[in-house]
Amino acid sequence: MISEGELVFIWNPQKGDSFLFKLKSGQTQGTHFGQIKHDDIMQHNFGDGVRMPKGAVYYIMRPTIGEYTRRLKRQTQIVFPKDSAYIIEHLNIFPGCTVVECGTGSGSLCCTFAHFVGANGRVCTYDRREEFSALARKNAERWGVADRIEFNVRELEEGFKERDADAVFLDVPTPWLYIDKAYEALAPGNHLGILVPTANQISETLRALAEHNFCDVQVLEIMHRFYKTEPNRIRPEDMMIGHTGYLIFAAKTLPIAEITDEEAAQREYTDHECVGEVQNESA
Amino acid sequence: MISEGELVFIWNPQKGDSFLFKLKSGQTQGTHFGQIKHDDIMQHNFGDGVRMPKGAVYYIMRPTIGEYTRRLKRQTQIVFPKDSAYIIEHLNIFPGCTVVECGTGSGSLCCTFAHFVGANGRVCTYDRREEFSALARKNAERWGVADRIEFNVRELEEGFKERDADAVFLDVPTPWLYIDKAYEALAPGNHLGILVPTANQISETLRALAEHNFCDVQVLEIMHRFYKTEPNRIRPEDMMIGHTGYLIFAAKTLPIAEITDEEAAQREYTDHECVGEVQNESA
Amino acid sequence: MISEGELVFIWNPQKGDSFLFKLKSGQTQGTHFGQIKHDDIMQHNFGDGVRMPKGAVYYIMRPTIGEYTRRLKRQTQIVFPKDSAYIIEHLNIFPGCTVVECGTGSGSLCCTFAHFVGANGRVCTYDRREEFSALARKNAERWGVADRIEFNVRELEEGFKERDADAVFLDVPTPWLYIDKAYEALAPGNHLGILVPTANQISETLRALAEHNFCDVQVLEIMHRFYKTEPNRIRPEDMMIGHTGYLIFAAKTLPIAEITDEEAAQREYTDHECVGEVQNESA
Amino acid sequence: MISEGELVFIWNPQKGDSFLFKLKSGQTQGTHFGQIKHDDIMQHNFGDGVRMPKGAVYYIMRPTIGEYTRRLKRQTQIVFPKDSAYIIEHLNIFPGCTVVECGTGSGSLCCTFAHFVGANGRVCTYDRREEFSALARKNAERWGVADRIEFNVRELEEGFKERDADAVFLDVPTPWLYIDKAYEALAPGNHLGILVPTANQISETLRALAEHNFCDVQVLEIMHRFYKTEPNRIRPEDMMIGHTGYLIFAAKTLPIAEITDEEAAQREYTDHECVGEVQNESA
Repeated sequence: MISEGELVFIWNPQKGDSFLFKLKSGQTQGTHFGQIKHDDIMQHNFGDGVRMPKGAVYYIMRPTIGEYTRRLKRQTQIVFPKDSAYIIEHLNIFPGCTVVECGTGSGSLCCTFAHFVGANGRVCTYDRREEFSALARKNAERWGVADRIEFNVRELEEGFKERDADAVFLDVPTPWLYIDKAYEALAPGNHLGILVPTANQISETLRALAEHNFCDVQVLEIMHRFYKTEPNRIRPEDMMIGHTGYLIFAAKTLPIAEITDEEAAQREYTDHECVGEVQNESA
Repeated sequence: MISEGELVFIWNPQKGDSFLFKLKSGQTQGTHFGQIKHDDIMQHNFGDGVRMPKGAVYYIMRPTIGEYTRRLKRQTQIVFPKDSAYIIEHLNIFPGCTVVECGTGSGSLCCTFAHFVGANGRVCTYDRREEFSALARKNAERWGVADRIEFNVRELEEGFKERDADAVFLDVPTPWLYIDKAYEALAPGNHLGILVPTANQISETLRALAEHNFCDVQVLEIMHRFYKTEPNRIRPEDMMIGHTGYLIFAAKTLPIAEITDEEAAQREYTDHECVGEVQNESA
Repeated sequence: MISEGELVFIWNPQKGDSFLFKLKSGQTQGTHFGQIKHDDIMQHNFGDGVRMPKGAVYYIMRPTIGEYTRRLKRQTQIVFPKDSAYIIEHLNIFPGCTVVECGTGSGSLCCTFAHFVGANGRVCTYDRREEFSALARKNAERWGVADRIEFNVRELEEGFKERDADAVFLDVPTPWLYIDKAYEALAPGNHLGILVPTANQISETLRALAEHNFCDVQVLEIMHRFYKTEPNRIRPEDMMIGHTGYLIFAAKTLPIAEITDEEAAQREYTDHECVGEVQNESA
Repeated sequence: MISEGELVFIWNPQKGDSFLFKLKSGQTQGTHFGQIKHDDIMQHNFGDGVRMPKGAVYYIMRPTIGEYTRRLKRQTQIVFPKDSAYIIEHLNIFPGCTVVECGTGSGSLCCTFAHFVGANGRVCTYDRREEFSALARKNAERWGVADRIEFNVRELEEGFKERDADAVFLDVPTPWLYIDKAYEALAPGNHLGILVPTANQISETLRALAEHNFCDVQVLEIMHRFYKTEPNRIRPEDMMIGHTGYLIFAAKTLPIAEITDEEAAQREYTDHECVGEVQNESA
């Protein structure tokens, strides 16, 4: 049986419509095929289908963090799963790590970070606006990860409080003004991630990264193309998302140590086994 | 100082070439600009730049799981970061969860799963070929996650040993033959993921999913488009990866419980607050 | 002054809305900013802006064949400019040539062919349904190219009447059933083009092409990605067309002439100047 | 029989390699499977396969303008068929029209324009460098369209000689400096096209277009995605062209005529039949 307080994701095969909500005794959820009492759902298990009056069925599924962030209450543009998935990977998020981000916004990326850092990890998020911070906290509480997140209301000009963070992410309109703050907060050898919607912002950001000690800079955009699911008529959907934003990544380096000529002379080129060379567009 | 046994990722800004290797006293790493002694690197910290004889610099960075899997020793096609990132998200992997996958191959996806499930999670991987299993184990040991992985050498006809897994993934040539085995292993309400390179395989797989109790089926492909990093000349790279594979996802449901007419009559449509409706092409 | 009977395309910069119509004295065109009398437009020249009551302006432009086909009256799915442009090029349409196509549909591709073959060229179009043929003729008359088109109402089982056509195009649900008919109509060494919406249809069509004497087969899809036009915020539109159809092209060959061993012996490999080799993914 | 002086395109199904050359008695063409004498080809017809010593076959096909431009002798970057096809369509090229372009470069776009304007049309091309003009002329002669092209060697600062051109195209590094010259040459209500490789250039160009009387501005990029042609394994090619350039289009308008309040008062909104409204991302 599914308990009160759990998040459920219900999905109907006829219309493909779906709802994501928290179970609370006495409440009902409206759907296109009628009302479902939360108490009825609590009589079921995950995976069960709840039959509606005229035969329609809603299946009860566990919500995913991707589905959750896509639907959370928002007052700002959010970071969508197509982008957040790769952010998680390229920033090398792992259970127990510490991530610093600005701005908090509605908390979509913040919740995703918190999901992946786990109970022993920590997300330190910053936003200058109190109301966004409050909204994000509410969204994080709903997903059950608020205790892993430290919500800061602060102007980024003051910088981050953290040092040696495992990863830093900037989702602000003028990231190039805060590259120094991101540098301060990040552990050397680790990655900074940035999301900007326009190509003009890429230019500004690249210039700022070049002025600080960042290397291995990558800029990319991610396109997801969904297909219809009729086996005899495999084809992409008519419409697709054309753009959300550009992702920029870079690794923090330290000023270069000098070596003596003697040391240098010892290093000569020989062929060596190595794991492999980088391809810039490697999939 | 970086310790012996650590994985390092070194990167040179002039050629953009890079190497990923494990530090071992007495060894050297060949590069395009000469040899680097591992012992020299152990005199440095992450983020440092190591200067080569003729002035070239290699920066020492922490490798990411994405970079690692992209470069691991392989005898098979691997699952690339562009796809694995979204697999991690859509299967709702979280620290401490249990994932079941087949086939192991060279272990790229297996290592990525192990990275994200953390020390308290578990990855149960299957492959019919002993040599792939052994290679994957070696790759997992190198990344330091082999203890989270259970390597099974087994024909998939025998099925998985696990039940109620948090997620199941199939990367085999004929996934449609094993949808029943995946169903058995997966917890109701949770997601199965599948990777296939061709559209013909999508058709077959969709037919098999329809015959079992799966719902919320999604088929998509992911395109990553990298940009050159010259601020005054923002433009995509000339060439890009055109295709790796199609991703298929579906959620396991249970046979539908009947309701009495009386129960049904109580459910009528009303407008209700809900988190939001699904858009099929949601970013 | 623009004459009665001319097609005009009017466009408003504020809303970006536009209309395409034929001038007729006494008529008016409704817009979002009020009515425009056709007689008023006839007082202007192409390029002029017509000012509306509250200050809005509609500019009068020459319609393009692309804009025209995108907006023509339709009862069927049409071939969009993004695809028709490349069809024109890859079928090597030229002024004065003869093109054969099936089916006529609403006449979008038919009008485009007629535009590019010019007054000395000929388009022979086939459709089994009288009403489509009539609609397409009306659309062609409006564009002023109906006299270059021969409208045939005929089942494709009977084949085309033409032989040695410069190009043949099939836009029918089951093109694989009519590859023999296309072969008959086409001049050897020239190209057949086919449009299908699904990957399953690609498979069937490729099998049929392989059974007949076609070579240099190409399958592709074309994606157009539009950008917003604000100079300080260069970025793609939020949504884009995800799919219209797959294009298949092939060249007709004849049964292979045998050569004697003597002749064969004379042909040995030497290095030679040549214009260049094909790249499969050539841009 | 194919005559001396004709261009032929030969293609081999095993390797997919191909050559495009002009037939001249006494010459031979080297291939991967041996030499072919031009005189042998002249014993055949288009569509025929020429058998090589060890059984390989080259089919003789009519070259297309797309294939030709892709392979022409070049000293510059060329405009590829994927882009030129849509340029032809959006500039509304038709048999008999006059097109003005700068710069000539190696003549790829110039030959394509000449192909589509036909024997009664005219292409006026400009380049500041004599050697490009000479190369382009040679390429145009080879394709047989040089007599439709007027080659001008001139600095664009001097402007175009033409007025009321049906279409104008700019493929120069700084098109924003010559928007006024393009405006002068173009007929009102007609389209200007521009190709730029970078997003920064889009910004500059959009600013210049806004300062002159251009409207209906469109910016887009075109992606062609080729598929493998094995019917049982339908899937895109592993690699694809990631970028060639961005296309910008705009229509020339004239200064706006004023209307009296009286005239304005007569124009009120009513619903009217119209061909349809524009969708910005129309396929």
